[in-house]
Amino acid sequence: MHPFTNISRLSLNQATTQRWGVREAIEGCARAGIPAIGFWRDKLAAAGIAASAHMVRDAGLHVSGVCRGGMFPAATAAERAARIDDNRRAIDEAAELAADVLVLVCGPAPDKDIQAARAMVADAIGQLIPYAAERGVKLGIEPLHPMYAGDRSVITTLSEALDLVERCATPHVGVVIDTYHVWWDPYLFRQIQRASGHILGFHVCDWLVPTPHMLLGRGMMGDGVIDLRAIRAMVENAGYRGHCEVEILSAENWWKRNPDEVLRVCVERHRTVV
Amino acid sequence: MHPFTNISRLSLNQATTQRWGVREAIEGCARAGIPAIGFWRDKLAAAGIAASAHMVRDAGLHVSGVCRGGMFPAATAAERAARIDDNRRAIDEAAELAADVLVLVCGPAPDKDIQAARAMVADAIGQLIPYAAERGVKLGIEPLHPMYAGDRSVITTLSEALDLVERCATPHVGVVIDTYHVWWDPYLFRQIQRASGHILGFHVCDWLVPTPHMLLGRGMMGDGVIDLRAIRAMVENAGYRGHCEVEILSAENWWKRNPDEVLRVCVERHRTVV
Repeated sequence: MHPFTNISRLSLNQATTQRWGVREAIEGCARAGIPAIGFWRDKLAAAGIAASAHMVRDAGLHVSGVCRGGMFPAATAAERAARIDDNRRAIDEAAELAADVLVLVCGPAPDKDIQAARAMVADAIGQLIPYAAERGVKLGIEPLHPMYAGDRSVITTLSEALDLVERCATPHVGVVIDTYHVWWDPYLFRQIQRASGHILGFHVCDWLVPTPHMLLGRGMMGDGVIDLRAIRAMVENAGYRGHCEVEILSAENWWKRNPDEVLRVCVERHRTVV
Repeated sequence: MHPFTNISRLSLNQATTQRWGVREAIEGCARAGIPAIGFWRDKLAAAGIAASAHMVRDAGLHVSGVCRGGMFPAATAAERAARIDDNRRAIDEAAELAADVLVLVCGPAPDKDIQAARAMVADAIGQLIPYAAERGVKLGIEPLHPMYAGDRSVITTLSEALDLVERCATPHVGVVIDTYHVWWDPYLFRQIQRASGHILGFHVCDWLVPTPHMLLGRGMMGDGVIDLRAIRAMVENAGYRGHCEVEILSAENWWKRNPDEVLRVCVERHRTVV
């Protein structure tokens, strides 16, 4: 059986159902037959980590990821240390939830020196490795689309994320590949091959033309221009056997709909176009 | 004297003064002491090519570029041939204006196969080379920011533009580097070094945080997060001695102001931050 044509590896990233909290998202996945979930820390904080871990175990759901650690670069050493402390808390949360990966959105530069910010990212991840290893948590560097280089992440391509992974040289650091962030990359095929053995997560959604909003204008799989099936094949051929997490930030469309309907469409599109 | 600290190599890309036609832009440059201009084909069509060429010669302005050729990929061979015909007309116009370069915005894919569209771009440029060479026109492949991969250009990085240039292996094809499109690139330094001898144009503006609009939300140099001086140094160190064209698409800010004031600010910022 083709690994992604049934929903045994489908996961709901709860950013897709923005109006639901942790409990509602877990219950919604159970109703829809979705076997896994990716959490966001703000939602976990609202529900409580221990309570969330209890609920997700009771529901028998797999936790494919926690969003997000990262945001490493800062102007002062004290602030950078504070960011690392926050990431240690995120690692604790991912450990308690038995999540496959803590997703790292690495953060923007505090000034115009983007290369210096990249060095801060490398330094911070290096500092976190022993703590992550001790708790059995994997750190997944998610390259973000270059349009977020100014405000969300200086790590903008799979290639540079893999440069970091190779420098870390530990199974506790890998990459998370999101179709929205990487679909345009001319060297995608080659870089996904290179990522073999280091892919800790796979996120899907679609790129709409026109894009209604730079952050909250993502599309449902099949509604945009991304050849999702081709990218999925690359990721599978690179040996990835984890979940396929649907993450759709969509303020004007999917967030306004009944979340149960959204999950029904996610399941259907996952079968037909991913 | 540092090549870019006076305005002898400053150029106005007329997209910056959207409300002005060709005549007004030429006259505005003369008033501001800006010695060069980059034209857009829609403005040239409105003013007439012969009349525009006459005016710009009379004013003693250098023509640093014509925007734009390109838009190569299409679903049918007939449509692709029509696009190439249009590019031949653009080459004729650039020749008549004695422009340094015809800027190529290569176009989006007609379907989800972005790699096939990239091959169409390579094929089309290859077909245009003899015509460009005959008329003494240089074709400048401008990699566009990856956020335009779905609707404007499948050529998204300097690296892949240089792959194309190297495949063409002719002095009639090179690259145009726009800070807005490439600033985020982790391999920018290396790729600009690689571009040495092939840089046919250099465009500047700034990336605003937040970005007010994906197409028409560009910033004045100094108002955003791009280290313009660092990128200018890379381009200079790669041997570029052409003009520095200011191209600011700004529907809600600079397009609403008095264009003479806009030119005054361009001159000032060019001296102080580029």
